This record gives sequence, C-alpha cells and structure tokens, in this order.
Amino acid sequence: MFKFVMPEVIFGSGSIKQVGESCVRLGARNVLIVTDQGVIDAGWLKSVEERCQEAGLAFVLFSNISVNPKETEAEMCAKVYRDNECDAFIGVGGGSAIDIAKAAAILVTNGGQVRDYEGVDRITKPLPPLVMVSTTAGSGSEVSQFSVIVDSERHIKMTIVSKSLVPDIAIIDPDVLATKSARLTASTGLDVLTHAIESFVSIAATPLTDVHAKNAIMLSSQFLRPSVASRFNMEAKEKMAMASLHAGLAFSNAILGAAHAMAHTIGGRYLFLHGDINAVLLPHVMEFNALAAPEKFRTIAELMGENVSSLCVSEACEKAVSHVRKLAVDIGAPLTLSEMGFEESAIPVISEIALLDACMITNPRDISADEVAFLLRQAL
Amino acid sequence: MFKFVMPEVIFGSGSIKQVGESCVRLGARNVLIVTDQGVIDAGWLKSVEERCQEAGLAFVLFSNISVNPKETEAEMCAKVYRDNECDAFIGVGGGSAIDIAKAAAILVTNGGQVRDYEGVDRITKPLPPLVMVSTTAGSGSEVSQFSVIVDSERHIKMTIVSKSLVPDIAIIDPDVLATKSARLTASTGLDVLTHAIESFVSIAATPLTDVHAKNAIMLSSQFLRPSVASRFNMEAKEKMAMASLHAGLAFSNAILGAAHAMAHTIGGRYLFLHGDINAVLLPHVMEFNALAAPEKFRTIAELMGENVSSLCVSEACEKAVSHVRKLAVDIGAPLTLSEMGFEESAIPVISEIALLDACMITNPRDISADEVAFLLRQAL
Repeated sequence: MFKFVMPEVIFGSGSIKQVGESCVRLGARNVLIVTDQGVIDAGWLKSVEERCQEAGLAFVLFSNISVNPKETEAEMCAKVYRDNECDAFIGVGGGSAIDIAKAAAILVTNGGQVRDYEGVDRITKPLPPLVMVSTTAGSGSEVSQFSVIVDSERHIKMTIVSKSLVPDIAIIDPDVLATKSARLTASTGLDVLTHAIESFVSIAATPLTDVHAKNAIMLSSQFLRPSVASRFNMEAKEKMAMASLHAGLAFSNAILGAAHAMAHTIGGRYLFLHGDINAVLLPHVMEFNALAAPEKFRTIAELMGENVSSLCVSEACEKAVSHVRKLAVDIGAPLTLSEMGFEESAIPVISEIALLDACMITNPRDISADEVAFLLRQAL
Repeated sequence: MFKFVMPEVIFGSGSIKQVGESCVRLGARNVLIVTDQGVIDAGWLKSVEERCQEAGLAFVLFSNISVNPKETEAEMCAKVYRDNECDAFIGVGGGSAIDIAKAAAILVTNGGQVRDYEGVDRITKPLPPLVMVSTTAGSGSEVSQFSVIVDSERHIKMTIVSKSLVPDIAIIDPDVLATKSARLTASTGLDVLTHAIESFVSIAATPLTDVHAKNAIMLSSQFLRPSVASRFNMEAKEKMAMASLHAGLAFSNAILGAAHAMAHTIGGRYLFLHGDINAVLLPHVMEFNALAAPEKFRTIAELMGENVSSLCVSEACEKAVSHVRKLAVDIGAPLTLSEMGFEESAIPVISEIALLDACMITNPRDISADEVAFLLRQAL
C-alpha cells in the first residue's frame, strides 16, 4: 500500500501570470511574498507583484534568505507574516525561498521553533494557503512534502517531511529559466537527476513514483546538456522544467537516499550549492547502491539511452554510473568535493551526522558511518 | 500552459482499511456513506462501516442508486446528509455511487438543483470533505473532476466538470476487484481503455496527461485479459487498478472525446452499462479520429505491443483499431449496439444531443451531427 500526494500544478510558458488569481482562489487578501535577491535581480519579483496588484491583493515582501536557508530566517519570515496580518504565502524562487516560506508557514499556525518539526509527520495544524512559483527547475520543493532548513547551532540541515508541506498550488513557468546562468542551470539540473535516480531506487518507491522518476531520468539525460548550452533554447528549458516536476513528484512520495543525506549534512556546514554536492556524490553513491537494486540501475542506463541489451547486469550498472559522470563533465559541474573547498578533516563528523538524516532511511543499501566516510573520501 | 489536479491517493491491497482514519484526518465526525446494492452484497460496505466505527465516526447510509444514477437520487442523498447533519461524504462504489456523492456534495454547500451545475466550472462554493473508495477499476471518478448524472426529464447524462469535484482522498484497493464478475470486469476495463485512448488524443492533452494515458494503455492492453479470465489473478487486478488510476488522472485533466459524448447520451436513455457502450463505440471513433492525430494512433498501437516499425502511418492506425476490436472480442464484450437493445430510430435525436456533451469539445477531429449518426449506424 502506498500514498501519493501532489499540489495543483500550473505548468507552462506564461503560467507565472496566474499567481495573483491563484491566491484569490484560495481566499487570500494580504499575502507575504517570500523570495531571494537573485529572483529580485532577474526581475521576476516585479512580475509577481504586478499580478498580485491586478488581482486586488495586498502584499508584503520578505527576502532576507541565504543560499542554504536558516531557521533564524524562517523565524523572521514568520514574524513579518504575523506583524502584517498576512493570510497566505507566495514563495518565489528555488528551494531556498520556497523552503523558508514553508517553514514560516509551519510556525505561524503551529507555533514553536523550526527544530520542533524536524523529521517525519510532526506538524499537527493545517498551514495557511501556499502558492509556490518555482524559478530553478531543480529543488522540486514547489510540489514536495519537504522543507530543508539549516540549524545554525548544530550546523546541519534539518529535513522536515509532512503532507502539510505540499503547497496548494505550484506554478512552473519555463520562461523564468531563461534568466538562469549556465552554472546554476547545471547545478540545479544535476539535482533533478539526483532526485530522479535516488527516488527510483528508494526502498519507498512505488509504481506511481517510478513512472515519474523514469520520465525525469529520460528528460534530464536528454535535455540538460542543451539547456546548459543556451539560454535561448526554450524547448530544452521546458523539458527540464518538466523533468524537475516529475523528479519532485517522485521524491516527494518515495523520499531520497544517501547522496541527499550526505549533501544535507555538508550543506549545513559549507556554503556550497546543493546541486553541486549532489553532482559530485551521485556517481559514488550509485556505484555503492548498485548491489542493492541492480535491475533498477540497468533500467536507469536504458532510460539514459545506453544500449545495455548485450551487457550483464553489473556492466549495465557501470554504464549508468559512467553516463552520469560524463554528463557532469560535459556541463562543467564540479567533479570533486576538494575543488569546492571541502576539507578531509570534516569527514568523521559529517559521516556520523549524515546517518541520522531522514533521507538515509530509504537508501536501498544498508550503510554505516564507515561506508559514508569511504564514499566521501572517494569523492574528495 | 496547463493545469493538473489530483486527490491524495491511497493505493494497494488493504488500503480500504484507511477509510475511517482518512475521514478523521479531514475533520469529519458524522459521515454519509454513499454506496449501491452491489457493493453491499459483496460485503465491502461492512468493511467500510467497521473502519468508521474503529475511527470513532458516526455514520449514515444512502444506497438508493441506479446503474446510471439520476439527479433525483442526488437530491435525496443531499437531503439525507442535511437531515442527519453530516459533515463529510464517503463514496463507495464505481462511478454511480461516487458521482451521486459528488453531486449531493455540490447541493449541500451550493444549493439549487443538479442541472444548475451542468458544464464546466459552475460550482462556486467549496464542497465538504470527500473520501472516495473505488470498487471497479473503471470509472476513475474517485480521482476526477467529473460527475456524470442522468437528467430524467431530458433523458440525457449531464456532465459536470469542476476542480471542486476532485475528492480529497481516493482509496483504491485492488482486493475489492476480486468480487467483481467477469462481465463487469470486462465492461469497466474497456471503459479504462476508452478513458486512456480518448484522453491521449484529446486536444486538451498535455505532457503530464500523456504520461498517465500511455501507462494506462500499456497496462490495460496487457492485464485486462488475465483480469477477466480469473477472479484470483491478483497481479492482474492490481495492474488494472493502476491502469484505471492512470486513465482517471489522464482524462480528469485532458477530458475525453466523441465516444464518451455519445456514450453519455445513450446512457441517458438506455440502461446499458457505460463501459459496454464505450467498448462498442471506441473502435469506430478511433477510425474516425485517426485522420486528426495519426502519430498518436501509431503510438497507441506501439503501446499495445504491436510491431508497427515497418508500417506506414495509416496501417499503424489500423493496427491500433484492430487491436482494440480483438481485445473486446477476446473478453466477450458486446460488439454492436443492436445486441444491447439500441434502436436505429434513436439515432437522429442521439446525434443532435451528443454534439452538446462537454466531452465533444476535446475530440481531436471536428464532428457534425451527420458524422455522429454515421458512427452510430456503423456501430449498430
């Protein structure tokens, strides 16, 4: 038996224009728009504000958000919401802005602190209306039941999982992707591929999440390269937006694995891009996990266009891994943790903490702290 | 740009046990259970009642429902809900029980009569919590934004389409399918295939509905035969339940076509099984529509396992049609309208009314009353 949840999705060129009307439909009158400086600089906040005005909505802005967003930012965001008597959230951004909007939404109806809700199913009261506008084709947070927030005291990323965190409406407009740098397109695109592969081999995968994961693997292996290559290839942007949607639906309902557990832990201590960490870790984790689900890795290779019909299963698994490695090289993603500034001395503590991340539970192969340390050393 | 909506889905063996808890989660205390005699006879109502008791829910029963459910039944159902001060609906059944529960839910918060809501987006006020338990692997109503109700004065089926009609929670338990007769399994299974094919070629199809439609076509062409052949083939039942879910998600968001428009009209006048009418009409409508979307019909043939690589597109379309015809023959479905008791003299009036059905708008090929009449004559 499995459960599957998703928000209402509005997808396609121009869909950002639906943001005001979407809030009105949910009964909002005075919304808090949560976003970050990158979105403001790219001009997308202005579009959102204009649509709110047209829809007769009052709005307030909160944009003090780090790349790896912190619980203190969620608390400030909740305070702004309360002080201004808002009645709904609009999140505009990648994972950072959307995850802060979600965490603040928890606080305004459930009280307490962000860390009270770390883990699975700890939210008891319904959240206010949430309309999320994705700007990255990466995090999948606009459709997921996850919020990932840095605990700045413990220097870890807390993973909060609850059906209550599934937004009411997710708006995915591929036009927005045209303002992303090649660097960010590569990083978020490899995050999509990591979502897809980890959810496909997750022990919580279901026939429905498999459908989404497979489509995400196919689309990202086909369209990530051209999307990085040109800001004007709108077909590639649209396909990557669709890949991100599929991957988001897959991991929201099947959870993830060791790469994400480790990436969350590293991201709690280093200001690396989440997608970069995943990009480096993914092939190592795939090699490690192949033992647990060889036929699934054969399917991954096939979905990425490899001809594996004449290969034995372990050769087919290697094809899947080498395909992912080559993709990362082609689009100029970082290939080692060292080049990003990660220090070997951090490995013991990172290994211990990563084991406790909620995403580790669904990794298909049992894993110990020593094995996490081994994978991190391989990825150095 | 497109929109896509679905309920929370609980799928799999034993999921019917979640019904009480699901209602509690939505805040219900006193539910109206809407079902029909077939479900009661098969013992499934008892399971649902037990789970409601365990969850501490009070409940009332409404089961005066025809095979092709009428607006007067929806009105009676709404009266029972109001008289007993219920606060949520559980629908248990195929399309009939679920559609009556939906129509009654409209009336209890929006007032008026069922026919006030015929067509698209005419419901203005939110509905009470809706938990739907599917017992047929057919209608898809447990996940869709549709309710189809007979207007007994005008002798037509009214199609009501609104996002408000998407239930809160859909429970799909393949175990329930084991009590269905081979006859009903065949009829509802061909309804699934019709949903899948019509939504795939619909002019409102999107990349997301295509994913679901394709999976539904693949699964039903593979597993409908073994599901009809044995009540105990639980793998086939589960795959057909999944096919029905995929098809429901596809047509809820991409709408349908001429076969359904005609089937609704015929079903308003004759007490035929909805799936039987679709089964007879589908190959004729496919032949007619092939002109509008030949590549999609080639894909349909491929999804059903036909080798069409060496065929020209019109030959590939014919393969798709003949595959559907053979499937209907193999599982003993009716092959003509006459054998079901349909009279040729009804063709002119049926043709005129079918043109007005909401499902006709998304048929891929333009169609006139004369062409509808031609298709009906072919299907006689």
